[in-house]
Amino acid sequence: MDNKKFPKVVIIGGGFGGIEVAKKLKDKEVDVLLLDRNNYHTFQPLLYQVATGTLEADSIAFPLRKMFKGQKNFKFRIADVTAIHPENKTLSTNIGDISYDYLVLATGATTNFFGNKQTEHFAMGMKNVREALNIRSYCLQNIEQALLAKTKEERLAHLNFVVVGAGPTGVELSGAIAELRNHILGKDYPELDTREMNVYLVEGLDKVLANLSPKASEKAALYLEELKVQIRLKTQVTGYDGNVITFADGSSIASKTVIWSAGVKGQFPEGIDPTVIVKGNRIQTDEFNRVKGLDAVFAIGDVAAVITDDTPRGHPGVAPVAQQQGRALAANLLRFMNGEAPEPFKYFDKGSMATIGRNKAVVDIGKIRFQGFFAWWVWMFVHLMSLIGFRNRLVTFINWLLSYVTFNGGIRLIIRPYQRTPLDETDQTK
Amino acid sequence: MDNKKFPKVVIIGGGFGGIEVAKKLKDKEVDVLLLDRNNYHTFQPLLYQVATGTLEADSIAFPLRKMFKGQKNFKFRIADVTAIHPENKTLSTNIGDISYDYLVLATGATTNFFGNKQTEHFAMGMKNVREALNIRSYCLQNIEQALLAKTKEERLAHLNFVVVGAGPTGVELSGAIAELRNHILGKDYPELDTREMNVYLVEGLDKVLANLSPKASEKAALYLEELKVQIRLKTQVTGYDGNVITFADGSSIASKTVIWSAGVKGQFPEGIDPTVIVKGNRIQTDEFNRVKGLDAVFAIGDVAAVITDDTPRGHPGVAPVAQQQGRALAANLLRFMNGEAPEPFKYFDKGSMATIGRNKAVVDIGKIRFQGFFAWWVWMFVHLMSLIGFRNRLVTFINWLLSYVTFNGGIRLIIRPYQRTPLDETDQTK
Repeated sequence: MDNKKFPKVVIIGGGFGGIEVAKKLKDKEVDVLLLDRNNYHTFQPLLYQVATGTLEADSIAFPLRKMFKGQKNFKFRIADVTAIHPENKTLSTNIGDISYDYLVLATGATTNFFGNKQTEHFAMGMKNVREALNIRSYCLQNIEQALLAKTKEERLAHLNFVVVGAGPTGVELSGAIAELRNHILGKDYPELDTREMNVYLVEGLDKVLANLSPKASEKAALYLEELKVQIRLKTQVTGYDGNVITFADGSSIASKTVIWSAGVKGQFPEGIDPTVIVKGNRIQTDEFNRVKGLDAVFAIGDVAAVITDDTPRGHPGVAPVAQQQGRALAANLLRFMNGEAPEPFKYFDKGSMATIGRNKAVVDIGKIRFQGFFAWWVWMFVHLMSLIGFRNRLVTFINWLLSYVTFNGGIRLIIRPYQRTPLDETDQTK
Repeated sequence: MDNKKFPKVVIIGGGFGGIEVAKKLKDKEVDVLLLDRNNYHTFQPLLYQVATGTLEADSIAFPLRKMFKGQKNFKFRIADVTAIHPENKTLSTNIGDISYDYLVLATGATTNFFGNKQTEHFAMGMKNVREALNIRSYCLQNIEQALLAKTKEERLAHLNFVVVGAGPTGVELSGAIAELRNHILGKDYPELDTREMNVYLVEGLDKVLANLSPKASEKAALYLEELKVQIRLKTQVTGYDGNVITFADGSSIASKTVIWSAGVKGQFPEGIDPTVIVKGNRIQTDEFNRVKGLDAVFAIGDVAAVITDDTPRGHPGVAPVAQQQGRALAANLLRFMNGEAPEPFKYFDKGSMATIGRNKAVVDIGKIRFQGFFAWWVWMFVHLMSLIGFRNRLVTFINWLLSYVTFNGGIRLIIRPYQRTPLDETDQTK
């Protein structure tokens, strides 16, 4: 495993950033070792469709080994990296110690509950495939439970679905749950009065999609209202105990299902100097993605904050940033190895978009901004083409087409029922 | 839930038999309540393709509520029935007591380890979607582990895959694992010497597919040998401790992965008179599928043994028997309700088939028996058409086509790693 002929680049994380580094190092005189906790790459932008049963996990997850088949300088290991030791260029992992010449931290972000342990335990994050499948199971379990409820109060708690955070994930997820209610669940559950099922979208700011243009925010809110999503703006969550979510204004909603898309924070192994950790638990780097104070350790994507005069708070935590940083870093790694001057990272913002139910989306591409049916086509095309593998694109296209035509697509299987543990037990659900 | 206007038929189990009863009672003057532990029907004949990653679970599982949408006299509940009480026509379940006028036990069969608790704990059954997904994960985990092994001995234990029982399930599964090795794993795992990976098919009888024609057995064995499956006939398993599987002749194989398809036994709630339980833990019924000694309780499919002069040991535990019994019973239930004479069940044997890798299958249809490429086409066509739902057929067809063309189809994601528990802990893996 330790071929010392070429410099050894170890990449932790097979997300959007990590895989770009590995791809760009193909056929170069380096040995690449990619480590990830999972044996697959996850296309996170479509996780909400796994959660709502439109797509199966295999359509949006792609085996990393298959992705790199034939790349001779590439190795992969399923590993959980617990600590990095820059002083002797090694990593501690659950499969033993690993040495590196260059280390790329592409470890991404996890859900940020802002320190509220109780909320963290009971609310559901949606940052990986397992969590998305848990949400799918749990939503269906709650509807089954609603049919068994002995009182109206109990029934409504099972039928109130609360999504916290109105970024693209929260907007798309709440829209998709509302569509399930509006068009599909009534067919599966003739005993269910779907008017009793409420979908709430809770946001601390004064608008949805705050990072997009004002027009996109406004239209997205309109589309959500048309789907009968109940939007609560300027509403801070104070806690969630598994039964009732409470807000700073004193109000509350009885709900068994709270999905948390209100923030992320960087995640990385131990061994990073705390002084280089900035807001959002991100690792500060220079414009070459070099971790401040270290010469052979780099960070890219959601876990990195490339802080320069132009970007005092780093870049947004989106896939294109990670991909572009990955490609730039691969080129710079080769320059470092060859004693050449590196080139600073420049982000090319390709725009933002979000979809709301069938037929509607909002798209911002620089100054070009449009919303509605055409935006929805653009959204679909971009996401379909971004999926990895011909099979995934084809199967996703078929699932979307059939869902659209039949108003009854999707996969509403409870394969592994989600079981909440009491707060004091170890949470094994992630 | 207890509409007493019409007789209430409660069906336990949404397998091949149970769903036929419910379908045939559509628009009849009965109330149908279907209970199942899962919210979906499983197409068990293709579970091995879920286990080997050719198909995703949603292609072969179909939500029961969706299956019966629009059937007005139909209700469904996810429930685990713990006991039946024929004396007062009620059931004990995890969602409360349920009353019935007519009860249909369509509870199917589970893996039979013939009383060996240690083997039951460590060997993997493949009777439901969760078990098939566990097998998929565990096989991949073992190949990953093989790459980390420090000794050849340890590595080979991870690379020896043992399938016990050479009925259709064992033959198809061992063939599919061998094909993965022969064509696919080498691409994913360039570091793996696939010649070190062995697939064993162990059978107590003196031939594979003992229930098919001698020609089918002979050809199936030939096809398996061409795939380099190592067949061990007349070999009784004496035990498996998670590391070594031992045989009656004193030999053994070091293997981390033993999949058990060597037998099934009926499964049903408590409350059945032990004197009506016959070989294979099946419930003896008369030719109207009426459980011996009870007048409103019926059993169909794998859990039932319709014992008559013509069928002293009941019928084989295959899907067509369950389906035909389901349809016959639905008709007889209506006759009972109307005071008409019931008609005895007659099994129409449509034949048997099994596929072995790409391009090869064996088919017995009465006196018509053929093997090879055409048989493989027949096998594919029959299985594709038997799947429920246009989407499932289309997605399965695409997956099969791409797997066939690319020699690299399939879904090798370890979504939920399978974790073995020590023998003394409660087994939560089922």
